[in-house]
Amino acid sequence: MAKTNPGRFFEDYKVGQVIRHAVPRTVSGGERAMYHALYPARSALYSSDEFARVSGLPSAPIDDLAAFHVVFGKTVPDVSLNAVANLGYAEGRWLRPVYPGDTLRSESEVIGVKENSNGKSGVVYVRTTGLNQYDHKVMEYVRWVMVRKRDLSAPAPEAVVPNLAKVVDPKDLVVPTGLDFSNYDFELAGEAHRWGDYEVGEKIDHVDGVTIEEAEHMIATRLWQNTAKVHFDATFREDGKRLIYGGHVISMARALSFNGLANAQMIVALNGGAHANPCFAGDTVKAWSEVLDKAETGAPGVGAIRLRLVATKQGAAPFAYKGEDGKYAPEVLLDLDYWALMPI
Amino acid sequence: MAKTNPGRFFEDYKVGQVIRHAVPRTVSGGERAMYHALYPARSALYSSDEFARVSGLPSAPIDDLAAFHVVFGKTVPDVSLNAVANLGYAEGRWLRPVYPGDTLRSESEVIGVKENSNGKSGVVYVRTTGLNQYDHKVMEYVRWVMVRKRDLSAPAPEAVVPNLAKVVDPKDLVVPTGLDFSNYDFELAGEAHRWGDYEVGEKIDHVDGVTIEEAEHMIATRLWQNTAKVHFDATFREDGKRLIYGGHVISMARALSFNGLANAQMIVALNGGAHANPCFAGDTVKAWSEVLDKAETGAPGVGAIRLRLVATKQGAAPFAYKGEDGKYAPEVLLDLDYWALMPI
Amino acid sequence: MAKTNPGRFFEDYKVGQVIRHAVPRTVSGGERAMYHALYPARSALYSSDEFARVSGLPSAPIDDLAAFHVVFGKTVPDVSLNAVANLGYAEGRWLRPVYPGDTLRSESEVIGVKENSNGKSGVVYVRTTGLNQYDHKVMEYVRWVMVRKRDLSAPAPEAVVPNLAKVVDPKDLVVPTGLDFSNYDFELAGEAHRWGDYEVGEKIDHVDGVTIEEAEHMIATRLWQNTAKVHFDATFREDGKRLIYGGHVISMARALSFNGLANAQMIVALNGGAHANPCFAGDTVKAWSEVLDKAETGAPGVGAIRLRLVATKQGAAPFAYKGEDGKYAPEVLLDLDYWALMPI
Repeated sequence: MAKTNPGRFFEDYKVGQVIRHAVPRTVSGGERAMYHALYPARSALYSSDEFARVSGLPSAPIDDLAAFHVVFGKTVPDVSLNAVANLGYAEGRWLRPVYPGDTLRSESEVIGVKENSNGKSGVVYVRTTGLNQYDHKVMEYVRWVMVRKRDLSAPAPEAVVPNLAKVVDPKDLVVPTGLDFSNYDFELAGEAHRWGDYEVGEKIDHVDGVTIEEAEHMIATRLWQNTAKVHFDATFREDGKRLIYGGHVISMARALSFNGLANAQMIVALNGGAHANPCFAGDTVKAWSEVLDKAETGAPGVGAIRLRLVATKQGAAPFAYKGEDGKYAPEVLLDLDYWALMPI
Repeated sequence: MAKTNPGRFFEDYKVGQVIRHAVPRTVSGGERAMYHALYPARSALYSSDEFARVSGLPSAPIDDLAAFHVVFGKTVPDVSLNAVANLGYAEGRWLRPVYPGDTLRSESEVIGVKENSNGKSGVVYVRTTGLNQYDHKVMEYVRWVMVRKRDLSAPAPEAVVPNLAKVVDPKDLVVPTGLDFSNYDFELAGEAHRWGDYEVGEKIDHVDGVTIEEAEHMIATRLWQNTAKVHFDATFREDGKRLIYGGHVISMARALSFNGLANAQMIVALNGGAHANPCFAGDTVKAWSEVLDKAETGAPGVGAIRLRLVATKQGAAPFAYKGEDGKYAPEVLLDLDYWALMPI
Repeated sequence: MAKTNPGRFFEDYKVGQVIRHAVPRTVSGGERAMYHALYPARSALYSSDEFARVSGLPSAPIDDLAAFHVVFGKTVPDVSLNAVANLGYAEGRWLRPVYPGDTLRSESEVIGVKENSNGKSGVVYVRTTGLNQYDHKVMEYVRWVMVRKRDLSAPAPEAVVPNLAKVVDPKDLVVPTGLDFSNYDFELAGEAHRWGDYEVGEKIDHVDGVTIEEAEHMIATRLWQNTAKVHFDATFREDGKRLIYGGHVISMARALSFNGLANAQMIVALNGGAHANPCFAGDTVKAWSEVLDKAETGAPGVGAIRLRLVATKQGAAPFAYKGEDGKYAPEVLLDLDYWALMPI
């Protein structure tokens, strides 16, 4: 019997099943440095231990999206090795900052399965939890993927489709213990705009762009121990292209959004997300954001802002999004809906 | 009003103005590892905590040029976003080594402005200071750039041109507290040549070359949180090329100069520098040095050596420099004049 | 006299000579993060401090091959600058894990010289030892290289060819102090297969592939301070190609072998190795392994497994190896023979 991992197929997933994912990972200043080298990330809270301390944290955490990638990467061999498509995210929440020295691992519970009418594949819903070395939850999110069946004659399971929130309710956002933006230094943070300066409906073109290189997206994707073939092996697809890990586009767009949203410091919830079109090396990624909502939090000086982050590639119209048919324009790469914390 | 940073234009700079730059940055062993991965840097003092301790330092500092890049990178959004050209450096001094765990920030004082006769742009002189978490100065340097005017009808300011030293006087060099090369191990450092073995006027061809890749210069430039579009966005210039950050060439040339100058350990002053010609991916960078001067320091076993470091690209003649017209040969990329510390 | 390093030529090596190599190097979490970013390495013992502690170690060591590359890189300027070919490895043993904070240096003793019959070059055998800051040996190995003569008229030295073991005897394997796999968590480690599940003669196709980029192999090679021109300078070879450091292929193949050998955690011996064919950017590296032998160790729950690791490139037949003429197939890049430790 082959010793390599064949991955799970649709019929291998049962609602209620819990998968403990390999491999635990200890992060350090090395991961922090690499994150800054791979993305134009400049958020002061993640760049400076001093800035973090003034904000009530013990030191600068690892970027929230780096924590997400570490947690997500571990699920790939168990959840998406035989996936045909990554369909969506919901109910994502960051529950505790991750600091250098922390060791992360991931678990997923299967919360839904629904076979497709073609009988060849089905949709699997998992709720993934990232835990640190104290078994404290650092984040959780729901993801659903379309997975092939191994045996087309396997009977369809009873369909279970979870009832997922369209948006994380602001009262469910977890503000890190101690976070306090009362003494926030806007000059050091890079921009003067505070929570009160953003209006729902406002759109921001982040202006800057980055042309993607093969070496960079592979380095990034491996850093999170996501080893899916399609990102690394130019002989895998017929067109000889390496598909870029969607998370690379998420981090690139989020980092680009610093220019106009420098004070949207911490990501606390992922309401939803779609990888609208594939991204390949040579594409030039730009980003724009739309303010979708605002909310207060109990923490001193801390407001919450709900943002749509859209990544586009070369050729995109200004604020390119969906066409009249409701479909994404072909130059749209990513549509992400998240909550961030910002000084009031 | 757009929330993105439009940058400052010529008429926004006033002599005496002090700009506190975003974003503070904590460095760690991660930045050290990346510096070694991006450049063929082998100076023992920066590579080994043990070697540094024998030399009287608490541990290996972050490379002097890495400290420079961190300090410099922060100034880009405030000083050179609308710059047409980076014209020069002077009076640069490293004042204190930077160690893993230190948090750096930058401030610049405008010390000169002079509108060009065409009325479309002007030259701005700033003295930039890098500070650590204790507000101790770690370095300072003067830079002048040509910046566009926003409003061509804005009146020309009174011209102020600072009187800058052509060379940092050796008696103004700051030798790090405790530095002692009395027990210097030349074998472990990689070369036997000591301060006394170098003669003023001597030229050294550093022999080795590195062909530059897009991914590498972008990773390096982002690592210092320098996010100038022209380095990252292949759609920005009409020729589709990404201009390589001048600091990447500085670090590459300095690292190449290990072969022949392995014992020129610490950089303590930047007397001047010119980015003679642009560098692009695919160029093969080589370097040569000329000994310009030597001086004693009060520190045990420590001498100072003033070096011209010239980076060239493919096609350069041996020791390529300037033509009879006083202009740099087209294959010359960099002309840097600095003081380093070397065991006597 | 030129101050750059001309390297040693064949006639410069004398049996019994000991060379202390420059430059000592302190490793940190930065090197660990970069190793994970450059290779699809997922071994739990090297990824997680917690997993390492449960296995009886103080924290996760730096990958064994990273330690090898650091030790090896230092020898290049002294041993292989004028080498025509890297001929082989033998009697390699890892003697002590390397942890973040350790400072490594290398020494080599010349243990054999034999001039070639053409009188133009000769074979030099060195036994290289890596030492940490306490002068404890962390590893040792024998390497032999063909080196050019400087002076063709120099007389041939008395030939000394060391008698090298074909395989490190299992009783000479050094199991790290405290290592204990009694509480090994196979689920967290990523695979269920234990020592008892592998049979001598069994072959494993590791399935995954990685297409190599110039930026990546240069970043990796510099990380180990291996600055041999041929890896970096596209103008050096007539065909404009940069030869990829053989160690990059070793690490890539070993990391790919996680898929099927996730529990072959620690490398403890290098029995032999051949860089069968050169590797260049654009090649897609895959790997397969063969179980050559198994042995018990005295340590609780710890078995030893001897593996042949073969790296191939695009176009290779399944389990490509040698032809009937005993020569490697042209698509074979690497043939490595090593001992690893695995939970029983």
